[in-house]
Amino acid sequence: MSKAYRYQQLESWLLEGITGQRWRVGERLPSVRDMCREQQVSKATVLHAYQRLEARGLLEARPKSGYFVLPDVANRGAPHIVSHAIVAPAPVTVSDVVMDVMDRGAAFDILPELRGLELQAGRDTLYSRSVDQNRKMTSPANHAGITALNRSIGRALRSQSDRAHQYYDEPAGDAGLREQLAQRYRRHGCESSADDFCITAGCQQSLFLALMACCQRGDIVAVESPGFYGVLQLLEQLGLQVVEIPASAVTGMDTEALERALQQWSIRACVVTPAFATPTGATLPSASRQTLLALADQYDLALIEDDIYGDLGFFGRPDPLKAQDKSDRVILCSSFSKSLSRDVRIGWIEAGRWHHQVKRLKLVTSLASSRFVQQGLASFIKDGGYDTHLRRQREQLRQQRNELVEFLDKHWPKEICFSVPEGGLALWLQLPQGINTLSAYGAALNKGVVITPGALFSSTDHYRNCLRLSFLHPLTASRQEALKILMGVLSH
Amino acid sequence: MSKAYRYQQLESWLLEGITGQRWRVGERLPSVRDMCREQQVSKATVLHAYQRLEARGLLEARPKSGYFVLPDVANRGAPHIVSHAIVAPAPVTVSDVVMDVMDRGAAFDILPELRGLELQAGRDTLYSRSVDQNRKMTSPANHAGITALNRSIGRALRSQSDRAHQYYDEPAGDAGLREQLAQRYRRHGCESSADDFCITAGCQQSLFLALMACCQRGDIVAVESPGFYGVLQLLEQLGLQVVEIPASAVTGMDTEALERALQQWSIRACVVTPAFATPTGATLPSASRQTLLALADQYDLALIEDDIYGDLGFFGRPDPLKAQDKSDRVILCSSFSKSLSRDVRIGWIEAGRWHHQVKRLKLVTSLASSRFVQQGLASFIKDGGYDTHLRRQREQLRQQRNELVEFLDKHWPKEICFSVPEGGLALWLQLPQGINTLSAYGAALNKGVVITPGALFSSTDHYRNCLRLSFLHPLTASRQEALKILMGVLSH
Repeated sequence: MSKAYRYQQLESWLLEGITGQRWRVGERLPSVRDMCREQQVSKATVLHAYQRLEARGLLEARPKSGYFVLPDVANRGAPHIVSHAIVAPAPVTVSDVVMDVMDRGAAFDILPELRGLELQAGRDTLYSRSVDQNRKMTSPANHAGITALNRSIGRALRSQSDRAHQYYDEPAGDAGLREQLAQRYRRHGCESSADDFCITAGCQQSLFLALMACCQRGDIVAVESPGFYGVLQLLEQLGLQVVEIPASAVTGMDTEALERALQQWSIRACVVTPAFATPTGATLPSASRQTLLALADQYDLALIEDDIYGDLGFFGRPDPLKAQDKSDRVILCSSFSKSLSRDVRIGWIEAGRWHHQVKRLKLVTSLASSRFVQQGLASFIKDGGYDTHLRRQREQLRQQRNELVEFLDKHWPKEICFSVPEGGLALWLQLPQGINTLSAYGAALNKGVVITPGALFSSTDHYRNCLRLSFLHPLTASRQEALKILMGVLSH
Repeated sequence: MSKAYRYQQLESWLLEGITGQRWRVGERLPSVRDMCREQQVSKATVLHAYQRLEARGLLEARPKSGYFVLPDVANRGAPHIVSHAIVAPAPVTVSDVVMDVMDRGAAFDILPELRGLELQAGRDTLYSRSVDQNRKMTSPANHAGITALNRSIGRALRSQSDRAHQYYDEPAGDAGLREQLAQRYRRHGCESSADDFCITAGCQQSLFLALMACCQRGDIVAVESPGFYGVLQLLEQLGLQVVEIPASAVTGMDTEALERALQQWSIRACVVTPAFATPTGATLPSASRQTLLALADQYDLALIEDDIYGDLGFFGRPDPLKAQDKSDRVILCSSFSKSLSRDVRIGWIEAGRWHHQVKRLKLVTSLASSRFVQQGLASFIKDGGYDTHLRRQREQLRQQRNELVEFLDKHWPKEICFSVPEGGLALWLQLPQGINTLSAYGAALNKGVVITPGALFSSTDHYRNCLRLSFLHPLTASRQEALKILMGVLSH
């Protein structure tokens, strides 16, 4: 019996075990050592078999934990890349209904927003039952990071000099925080120094400054479709025209479609989220990145990189597009809002050749950021608190993604397909054509369920049968209940 | 001897004592009681005489302290209202030199900025000598307010719920803070409710949102001349045209000149600082306010009210223009930066009929503000901390204004005239025509003195012989030395 035969035999035997539910979805396979002993094979053979199943998308290797059974979503498939013709550039006009949904925060939760309820510490809430359940389910690991961060900000606050309150921070932001950011990006191939960064009030402000710096009213901007609704809002407010480039739920923006658009229209800038884009969770493959950078050079394009989910890769942090930016035309935008806290209101921008304009615009539109908050963050990062938090956060999100995928796989009809991203905060679901998630929004809200309809992620109506579902929160009993209610609403 | 004769006699006798330096500038006159006894007159007579001298600008009544001798600046006079013809509206192009000065923070100090030096707590500084002196001179009273504020923010930070970091604050900002603001403004005649306010990242962002909401690229905006340089920067970045309306150093914008401009050009908005405007410290009299509001109605104008110095009135807080706004066209903009701390980065806007657009713009350009900072501020105000701080702050600023006025009166040539504002943070000086303060900027900086040249406050060159001098800091020995060096530089 050849070794090749042995691992193939083992692979088939494991596959049978998985499909026959000897090992169920989410369960851990025996350790390599145990499997060696049990099957009387070498360690190399077991590893070979496990890795082949991993490559087929049936197992998932978790660092220091072993191999786990993934839900077999292959037969569902990810949502198709929408093969619609590109609509000619036009000013963005987002409908009132969509604006209303956006205004409510386009929730990363399916339970009613707790804003103004639970968040007012110590107040009784309308949703006390589910809130109590949720509180119990909040991972202590995750909370430890936030406690450490808050302690660090508190320390920075107390250590301000007597007269610090009389001075604005420098326009580019705290030098210590910029240095920490530069160091982190250098680990991922970027050559930026602290002086190339400008601190902002969050990624949305970074995107705003980027668009203000490189576009004039009436200019055409290319965006992913589906893509981040915040960018559509910005384009509307700044009087810019949009051209939506189809994006796959797995591999992101279709660069061939982008090239056709560039040939047809004079496009000034392209907003792209190379890592775990919202709403799909797609990650741009290396080849697409190369194409994108080449097209940017050829057509003199500003590439606005939304890197907000970059730190939330379950299996490591992908290098940003900026790392390969030879001609200084990538404007890197990000913040701590998704990876750490939405309440510190600190983001950053590395604007390449537009650095000077961006710094000027930041000064003119908002003067400065809070020094003590920046210093607290800088210490938190320097002391290793952020990396520790990220490790826990990524592991927790990965588990929550699996819980959600398993739940949907088990309880929702098979004709619904969805992406299974390797980072970020949400799945993208494609429901049968007849279903309109925007119409279902009100009905779901009436039953205490908040959804994020596909319509939010485009100025076209291509995604009315789509839905973003977040796995930011643990799948508590009340969230499972909400998913069941939602399925009922959507089926009507 | 009639009573009338008695008080007149007393008044003359006191005047002789003041001019003959029996009581020197800054000194306290005998208490009313002592004066009654000493001069054998009634309390009413003494009060009458004191109040007449106060009305003549020779004495100053300080609550609970008595009457103090003011420097006799009447023979200097305030800077004249500049009688230049209004320049036709034009896009703003601020020169590079001026932009550079602005970028350095247009300092509210004459010592080199401490940013990045002293403010990095615990670090040694290039200016350790003067910094040490300054530190000693920092009023413990003033510092107490900041300590209480930081404690309040620290408490808010610690009391955040476990999951608060997963949610953005609502776009309009913390309801508790908005309620506190609404209550404060209601005490000054405003009818606004908490729902009419929107929290921002500071007054500069409020002004930015206001201009974005009510103007389109190319529109004409009227501003005070001299006026706040931050507004000129905003107009430049937003592609708006400026028309500068002459403003007196005492009574602010010349409303007749504004009316002539309105007759000539189609002006969309007018930015005005009714209380203690920078750089002059002027306060708009009641009649001008009425005219301004009437003109706004007649010419369908948005009135953007910069109220940032409103809380810094030494003898009480003037009602904002917004209080008399019957037609909802005043956009009230302010922040805590001047009255409390430049580092909390919290301001507000009450945008009247533009409220909806402003809220949308805030959401789109920066999403939200820090919840814990807002909650800390709200508690600080609610607990009376802000009022206590303001009382001390106003008294300290008044004393520092007097110190500066006395110093200039004693040491600087008599042909230099300046305003003596009743609030705010700075004096406005008019030097002889030959002097160019912008040219002196570099020479002064070389000698370790930072100035704020008149050129910053206009896009014309009308104020090249003017200078803003701040009294935000105590007049320490090193600041007195800096003023002497400055006089030397200016005389060359």
